[in-house]
Amino acid sequence: MSNIEKKEQLYEGKAKKVYATNDPDLVIVDYKDDATAFNGEKKGTIAGKGVINNKMTNFMFKMLEKEGVPTHLVEEISDRETIVKKVSIVPLEVIIRNVAAGSFSKRMGVEEGKQLLCPILEFSYKNDDLGDPFINDYYALALGIATKEELETIAKYAFKVNEFMVKFFKGLNIDLIDFKIEFGKTSDGTIILADEISPDTCRFWDSTTHEKLDKDRFRRDMGGVEEAYQEIMKRLMGE
Amino acid sequence: MSNIEKKEQLYEGKAKKVYATNDPDLVIVDYKDDATAFNGEKKGTIAGKGVINNKMTNFMFKMLEKEGVPTHLVEEISDRETIVKKVSIVPLEVIIRNVAAGSFSKRMGVEEGKQLLCPILEFSYKNDDLGDPFINDYYALALGIATKEELETIAKYAFKVNEFMVKFFKGLNIDLIDFKIEFGKTSDGTIILADEISPDTCRFWDSTTHEKLDKDRFRRDMGGVEEAYQEIMKRLMGE
Repeated sequence: MSNIEKKEQLYEGKAKKVYATNDPDLVIVDYKDDATAFNGEKKGTIAGKGVINNKMTNFMFKMLEKEGVPTHLVEEISDRETIVKKVSIVPLEVIIRNVAAGSFSKRMGVEEGKQLLCPILEFSYKNDDLGDPFINDYYALALGIATKEELETIAKYAFKVNEFMVKFFKGLNIDLIDFKIEFGKTSDGTIILADEISPDTCRFWDSTTHEKLDKDRFRRDMGGVEEAYQEIMKRLMGE
Repeated sequence: MSNIEKKEQLYEGKAKKVYATNDPDLVIVDYKDDATAFNGEKKGTIAGKGVINNKMTNFMFKMLEKEGVPTHLVEEISDRETIVKKVSIVPLEVIIRNVAAGSFSKRMGVEEGKQLLCPILEFSYKNDDLGDPFINDYYALALGIATKEELETIAKYAFKVNEFMVKFFKGLNIDLIDFKIEFGKTSDGTIILADEISPDTCRFWDSTTHEKLDKDRFRRDMGGVEEAYQEIMKRLMGE
């Protein structure tokens, strides 16, 4: 896609910038090293994170496309930059949990590490002012956040992503504890996987040692943050 | 049921006491005037509430039985006491919302009184230590709180209760804003409506004046609490 030119910045989020291009249906995502947690209250930098998250997301999205999950991925153009389809993001954080951890453990009084009887799918309404509140399907319908058909498509894809990723990471001796994904709508209304899949958005525990290989090391000041991101990347690339 | 004798107290809740009887399948509910709010943080008394809630619940449950919703009601034996089927309560607060109000309005940033595009069904996990956290169906399944079949039955009955009550109260010039119900399981596993339906557990607004005729008057120190409960009862009894 050598004919795609980077134009003005459209948006700067916590971990990514998005740029317009000369094609109205395409944008360029630029991954930053900035890290935030607890709805932006904690701020920091994880050196090299942008490169890892860019490459890892594209690696995962390519595999998920083959599994029948459409994604926004078009082409990686540099270590930190990728051309993706322009979408309007469905304002839902789509979370899947296989094992109790984090806010779920606290809210529900369930020990971290407890295997759940079945995977949990949950939605948070993406709204910084409200602190991304936990909602359910009826909330989304009653407030016009998404249609029934969109919710069904999102649930179907989310479980597909989980099923594939659990197996895939198990092969790298990693337990997929939980993760957050986001979906977007293309101009014709098609729902596709957008945003990223990375140690920023997934909880990864080493299957043998249960060592955390994800952003919880940053959230909880555990040290070894950069090393954890690199370790995931190393296993992913089979080095 | 003159052969039913009141035996030892089994349980004292925030608004009711429950007594054993000489029949192992039956208990006696005794409605108190005690009122609490905000998970027990606010405490008080609403004179005559126990009588109103007992009579109103039985009045509603009788009508709901005719609509095909099985309830725990057996027989009213005094102003404050009713014989009911003994059940193990499903630890879910089952909430239906027709109009934005209360905690929903605060959490979602939606003005009180805004009509929702469709009714919302939501579940809270009944657990005082955890503050009755909002959950969804997957949580209930993943933590073994209820089975898929039980959740489907509960959802079916909850919407039936809502559909009937919205229409019924509209006939009394009252808008049913939202309400909380609870279900129990009999010894053979049958799901039946239990607990109560009263101004303690429903938000009722006068359709014309939008005056609140429910426990929000107590929660928000609005005055006229007893009068509101009596007004509901008066319209219900057609006096």
